[in-house]
Amino acid sequence: MIGLGLIGGSVMRAAAAAGREVFGYNRSVESVQAATADGFDATENLDDALRRASDERALIVLAVPVPALPLMLDHIRRTAPDCSLTDVTSVKGAVLQEVRSFGLLDRFVGGHPMAGTAHSGWEAGDAQLFVGAPWVVSVDDHVDPDVWVQVSLLALDCGAVVVPARSDEHDTAAATISHLPHLLAEALAATAGEVPLAFALAAGSFRDGTRVAATAPDLVRAMCEANADQLLPVLDQALERLHHARELLAGHQPLTDFVDQGHAARVRYDSFTRPDIVTTVVGAPGWREELAAAGRAGGVIRSALPVLGTRE
Amino acid sequence: MIGLGLIGGSVMRAAAAAGREVFGYNRSVESVQAATADGFDATENLDDALRRASDERALIVLAVPVPALPLMLDHIRRTAPDCSLTDVTSVKGAVLQEVRSFGLLDRFVGGHPMAGTAHSGWEAGDAQLFVGAPWVVSVDDHVDPDVWVQVSLLALDCGAVVVPARSDEHDTAAATISHLPHLLAEALAATAGEVPLAFALAAGSFRDGTRVAATAPDLVRAMCEANADQLLPVLDQALERLHHARELLAGHQPLTDFVDQGHAARVRYDSFTRPDIVTTVVGAPGWREELAAAGRAGGVIRSALPVLGTRE
Repeated sequence: MIGLGLIGGSVMRAAAAAGREVFGYNRSVESVQAATADGFDATENLDDALRRASDERALIVLAVPVPALPLMLDHIRRTAPDCSLTDVTSVKGAVLQEVRSFGLLDRFVGGHPMAGTAHSGWEAGDAQLFVGAPWVVSVDDHVDPDVWVQVSLLALDCGAVVVPARSDEHDTAAATISHLPHLLAEALAATAGEVPLAFALAAGSFRDGTRVAATAPDLVRAMCEANADQLLPVLDQALERLHHARELLAGHQPLTDFVDQGHAARVRYDSFTRPDIVTTVVGAPGWREELAAAGRAGGVIRSALPVLGTRE
Repeated sequence: MIGLGLIGGSVMRAAAAAGREVFGYNRSVESVQAATADGFDATENLDDALRRASDERALIVLAVPVPALPLMLDHIRRTAPDCSLTDVTSVKGAVLQEVRSFGLLDRFVGGHPMAGTAHSGWEAGDAQLFVGAPWVVSVDDHVDPDVWVQVSLLALDCGAVVVPARSDEHDTAAATISHLPHLLAEALAATAGEVPLAFALAAGSFRDGTRVAATAPDLVRAMCEANADQLLPVLDQALERLHHARELLAGHQPLTDFVDQGHAARVRYDSFTRPDIVTTVVGAPGWREELAAAGRAGGVIRSALPVLGTRE
């Protein structure tokens, strides 16, 4: 584990609870001491950790903020270039690009456990954080079947369900279902903040529509700014719809299509099913495309898939 | 009670439960029969009901949809022009204008109990529907103190808390905290509906941000279209904020101000208090302005206010 914050610390606890050998690095002595006091194997010496990873052919999990990635990848390239590598970052395209620029793509499979709390740091970690949560494991064109199996087994061991997805599709979907709602909530809250009587009359629709505006501003900025290129086109699509509604209202025309489309989409979401993916053989021809399509359709992996050339 | 649907039927039940004499009119024989079967005094003869109201100097409560108002007001003008008059409609400016056009403004004080369910009709009514709910009672310039007291006592008898507000401010606030969230939710749901993988990854922020898109399309259209003139300017304000965010993202600039303003507004909303209004003397100089200011500041009336020229 490179990084022992909320997510890294939770993966460490969950992996240990699943019986895995796990050791970690963190930059701050305090977190290392806290992890050590809790009985975990942690160091603040990155190269020591990476040498050991290389010796033990460990799966390296990058659990540091995006700005810290280049420094970590530089050390990995020099000390543990042959280790399998994954990450737990909420943007996948930018990480993929960094990893490629350091020549580490062959052994890399991106990941994103979709769980979190409002807290951060080692102390906030929880071995149960990922139980039942979707954990995206990327199926980009370069992905190696062996590394993919290692990463998805880690996710399953942590209690998550694996959602296979391409990095670009993940980022556009995350922009739509997470970052765009944050922008809309901020705009709604700020608009209401300038209308006398608005807070006095506010009820359920306002509370729900602005709930995520209560998120710490730094977190919202970090998410949205890091995914700006994917967020822009979906923001533009939402703006186009809202401008259409605006023109209808201004012309005293019925909002029929605008409202019907939103309602139909929400109804489809409510009836969206999560079928189990069980038959895809990892490593067989077209396996990445098959998994990407299944993930798009809502499919999730709840137990290890068959792998080409092995026998259960 | 003119109209025995969800709201009218609930007011009738709540008023009767509070010991008031109450009788009602409804256009459909079925609703009248259902109300009668439940032990209430109801007729499908509008002029009979209005003659009785006139004889008994009743407070007439309009609980019909906005399009039915002109016909009702025409009958009231001819048969019961001296009765006190209120309504329970979610738009206040349009109703005020109708009432004025029928020359009935002197005895009219608009109202809006902010409660409802997804159901409609007499059967859906509930004497407890308004318990603890805000019930806006208008304090427009024309408002007569006696009628205002009658209307606010009805709201209190139904278990509601009275929020005094001007009709125009009510409509702008309702546009902001109810109708605008509906537009944003429809746009978000429809946008996500076209992004592969979006529903597969959707979690809390998407669910909350689109919850009201599950509302019946006809209800959403009726609310938004009837309040179009108030909804447009607040929609424009939200659009302006979102376009600002869009330009920042496109220029890879920090979203600091945009996010901070939304967060600050939501934090203010979370700490918004609801002080009791107790000292305003209804009928004293400036009483309407005083109540409007108190309502704007979050104030609510939980028991009858003192009235000029009377002694408790």
